[in-house]
Amino acid sequence: MTQVADPAQLTASEAARAIAAGELTAEALVTACLDRIHARDGDVQAWQHLDEGVALAMARARDAQDGPYGALHGIPVGIKDIIDTEELPSERGSSIYLGRRPGRDAAATAMLRAAGAVILGKTVTTEFACGSAGMTRNPHDAEHTPGGSSSGSGAGVADYQVPLALGTQTAGSVIRPAAYNGIPGLKPSFGTVPRDGVSFVADSLDTIGWYGRSIEDLALVLGVYRGAALPPLDTLVDEEAVRGLRIGVCRTPDWREAGPGIAEALDDAAEALRGAGATVEAMELPSEFDGLGEAQNAIMCREMTFWIGREWHEQRDQLSDHITQRLLLGERVSATELGEAIGLVMRSRAAAPAIFERYDALIAPSAPGEAPLATDGTGSPILNRLWTVLHLPCVAIPVRRGPSGLPVGVQLVGAFGSDVRLLAIAQHGWRALGSPAGVELG
Amino acid sequence: MTQVADPAQLTASEAARAIAAGELTAEALVTACLDRIHARDGDVQAWQHLDEGVALAMARARDAQDGPYGALHGIPVGIKDIIDTEELPSERGSSIYLGRRPGRDAAATAMLRAAGAVILGKTVTTEFACGSAGMTRNPHDAEHTPGGSSSGSGAGVADYQVPLALGTQTAGSVIRPAAYNGIPGLKPSFGTVPRDGVSFVADSLDTIGWYGRSIEDLALVLGVYRGAALPPLDTLVDEEAVRGLRIGVCRTPDWREAGPGIAEALDDAAEALRGAGATVEAMELPSEFDGLGEAQNAIMCREMTFWIGREWHEQRDQLSDHITQRLLLGERVSATELGEAIGLVMRSRAAAPAIFERYDALIAPSAPGEAPLATDGTGSPILNRLWTVLHLPCVAIPVRRGPSGLPVGVQLVGAFGSDVRLLAIAQHGWRALGSPAGVELG
Repeated sequence: MTQVADPAQLTASEAARAIAAGELTAEALVTACLDRIHARDGDVQAWQHLDEGVALAMARARDAQDGPYGALHGIPVGIKDIIDTEELPSERGSSIYLGRRPGRDAAATAMLRAAGAVILGKTVTTEFACGSAGMTRNPHDAEHTPGGSSSGSGAGVADYQVPLALGTQTAGSVIRPAAYNGIPGLKPSFGTVPRDGVSFVADSLDTIGWYGRSIEDLALVLGVYRGAALPPLDTLVDEEAVRGLRIGVCRTPDWREAGPGIAEALDDAAEALRGAGATVEAMELPSEFDGLGEAQNAIMCREMTFWIGREWHEQRDQLSDHITQRLLLGERVSATELGEAIGLVMRSRAAAPAIFERYDALIAPSAPGEAPLATDGTGSPILNRLWTVLHLPCVAIPVRRGPSGLPVGVQLVGAFGSDVRLLAIAQHGWRALGSPAGVELG
Repeated sequence: MTQVADPAQLTASEAARAIAAGELTAEALVTACLDRIHARDGDVQAWQHLDEGVALAMARARDAQDGPYGALHGIPVGIKDIIDTEELPSERGSSIYLGRRPGRDAAATAMLRAAGAVILGKTVTTEFACGSAGMTRNPHDAEHTPGGSSSGSGAGVADYQVPLALGTQTAGSVIRPAAYNGIPGLKPSFGTVPRDGVSFVADSLDTIGWYGRSIEDLALVLGVYRGAALPPLDTLVDEEAVRGLRIGVCRTPDWREAGPGIAEALDDAAEALRGAGATVEAMELPSEFDGLGEAQNAIMCREMTFWIGREWHEQRDQLSDHITQRLLLGERVSATELGEAIGLVMRSRAAAPAIFERYDALIAPSAPGEAPLATDGTGSPILNRLWTVLHLPCVAIPVRRGPSGLPVGVQLVGAFGSDVRLLAIAQHGWRALGSPAGVELG
C-alpha cells in the first residue's frame, strides 16, 4: 500500500479517492484525525463529545465492508451538537440537555452515515445555536473566536482535525465561522437538507450547511443530500463558460459594518474571477432590499420563543443572558411587526430572480472583519442575515489575511436552487485565489 | 343600519365590506355563525373547542375599535386544533394533549388576529393531523367523511358555520377536504405561512392553508400572510389576459386511483376555462415525475418518527393503530431510501419550472372521488402527494356533484411562488363554473 504522509491533511475528496484506491484505510484516517485532535485540543477545543473507541470501531467496520462504496466511505465527519447522533450525546450547547442521548440519528446524520461516513464526534455549538459562546477557540489564534454558532465544526475543519463537518445557519452561523477560520463552507438553498433530529432556532430560517477544505468537498456532501453525486464541477462551468459569467460585487445595505480587510477581500475575489475570464462589476441591491437584516432578526427572535419555548417557559434560570435578551426581544415582536417583516421578505424574495437574471452570482462580504477576540463574543451576523432570510445558497471562500493576520473571506451568493452551479463558479474563484484553506501546518 | 338577512351566508370579503360600511357588526356576524352551529352541530361536529363567551367578547371588542381596520376586521375564523391559540385549548386530536392550553397564539393565528379576525373556535383535526379520524361528518351527508386531516375546518366553512378556517397539508389535508366539502381552498407555496405554534407532522412538507367560500376570500387571507393586501384578482388576469392563458389538464401518474365523477370534473373545469378564453389541452408529466407519491410517503413517515417522536417513544399506548402503522413504516425507511426519495424530489422540483413555462397552470384531480363513508376513513391523499412534495401552490375549486350527489372538484396547480397569479386564474374558472360553494341552504 502506498503510504499517505499525513492523512489528516487530505481533503475529503482526496481521502475518499485514496480509500477507494486501497491507498488509505478509514482506520488510518481516523487515527490521524485523532492524533491531530490530541495535539491541538488544548488550544482549539472543537469537540463537545468524542468517543475514540466508537469512532475507531466505525472506521474498522468501514474497512471491513465490501464495495460498492458510498461517496463518503470511511471519511470522518464532525456533527454540530444540535444535530442528533445515534451513539453520542446531543446536548445542544445547553446545561438543560446535559447528558441527553437521543439514541437515533437526525436524517442529516443518517444520510452521511448511509454514504459511508464515520461519525467522528459532536462539535461545539453556541447555546441552542443562538445563545452564549462555547469553549472553542480560533485555530489561527486561540485568543480569538472561531465564530458561531457552528464554532467547533468550523474550527475543527480549519485545524485539520476532521475533513468535513456539519453546521447550521439561522442568521450567519455557517458562513461567518467559515470566514473566521479560513475555510470553504456551503449554506445551501433553504430546504435542501432534512431537519428532523435538529434542535430548531427558527423554522423559517434554519438551514443545515457544512464545511470542507475544498470546493470539491462541499460538492461531495451536496451530492449525498441530493441523492446523487454531482458531475465534476469543471464540466458544469468550463473554462469557456467562465468567460460568459457575469458577477456582481455586492457590498450589501449593511456595508457600513464592514471593517478592515473586507474591501480588500472583495477586490481580491473580484480580481480572481475577472482573471479567470468572468465579467465582474460593482452592483447595488435595489432599495426594496433595505431592512431585510432587521426583518430577519424580528422573525428569528419571535420564532425562537416557540422553538425554545419549553425551555424559555419552564427552565428560564438555565438560559444565558445572551439568549434571554433575544427571547425577550422575540416576545415583544407583535403580529403586526411580524407581518411587516414577512411582507418585506416576500417582496424581496419575489424580486431576487431578476437580480440573478443579470448576474450569475454575487460576491458579498461573509463577515464584518477578522475574528474578534473570544472575550468579545462570536462576531456579528449582520452581513449574513439578508441572504439567509432570502433562502439563497451561499458559498464561503477564504481570500486573504486581514490586518491582524487572521483570515478574511467572501461569499458567493446565487439564485434559489442554483447551488450546484454556484459551487462550479466558486471553484473557479477558489482556484484563482490559490485555494487557501485552514491553518498553516508547521 | 341596512340589515343583512343572514350574515352567516356572506363570504368573508362580503362581510368585511359590510362591516367596514357600517351595515353589519362583528357581534351580529359571530352570533349568526353561532346560531348556525347550534342548528347544525349535532350532524356536523366541526368544532373541538368553542367558547361562545370569548368569541362574542372578541367580536364586541372589534365593534368598539376605531379604524383603520385590518383586512379581516370582525371576521370569524376557525383554527385547526394543531395550531395554537391564546384563549382556547390546542389538543392536536390526541388524548395525549387533552386539556393542553398553550396560552399563546401560533404566528399563523396571531397574524389573523392582528388583521382584525375573531378567533371563533378550534376545529376538529385527525390525530396529529395524520392519524385516526375525528368526529366531524360531511355537512352534505352526515354518513360521509368531510375528509382529513383538516376535517372541522373544511366542514365548518362548507356548512356556513364560519366563513374562513385554517388547515394544514402534509399529504392532501387541505385540498382533499375542500373537494369533499365542495368549497375553495388554498395550499400556498411551501414556506408562505410561519409555522411556529403548530404541531408538526413532517417539517419538509407541512404547509398551512385555508378555506373560504370564494376565491376572493382565499386571496384576502393570502394578503394577510404576505404582509400586504393583494390587488383585485381581476386586475392581475383580466378578460384580455385570460385569452392568453395556456392550461394543461394533468391526470397525474396516479390517475388509476380516480373514481366516478373525477374525469367529468376535469372536463367541466377545462371547459369552463376554455369558455373564458384560455387554451386548454391535455398534458402528461414527464416520466421523471413517476414515484413522487411514494417518495412523499417515505419522507413523511420517516419525519413523523421525529416530530411525533416524544409521543411515539413515551406514550405509544395512547396512539391509534392508524398512526402507529405510519410510524412503524417510518422507522423502516432507511437513510438510503430517504436519500433516493429526496433525490427524486430534488430532480422533479428542478424540472417543474419547465412545465410552467409551457402552462400557466395545471388542472388536476383534487381527490379520487366523492367523500367516502365515514366508517371507511377520511379518504386517500394519493392524488395530492406529488404536488405537496413539489412545494407547489394548489387551489381547490368545487366543480359539480358526483354520482352519489356529493361534491367533486379539481385543483389548479401553479409554479412555485405563483400563488397570487394562480388565484387570479382560479377566479376565472370559478366564475365560469357558476361559483358553487358549500351546502345547499334550505
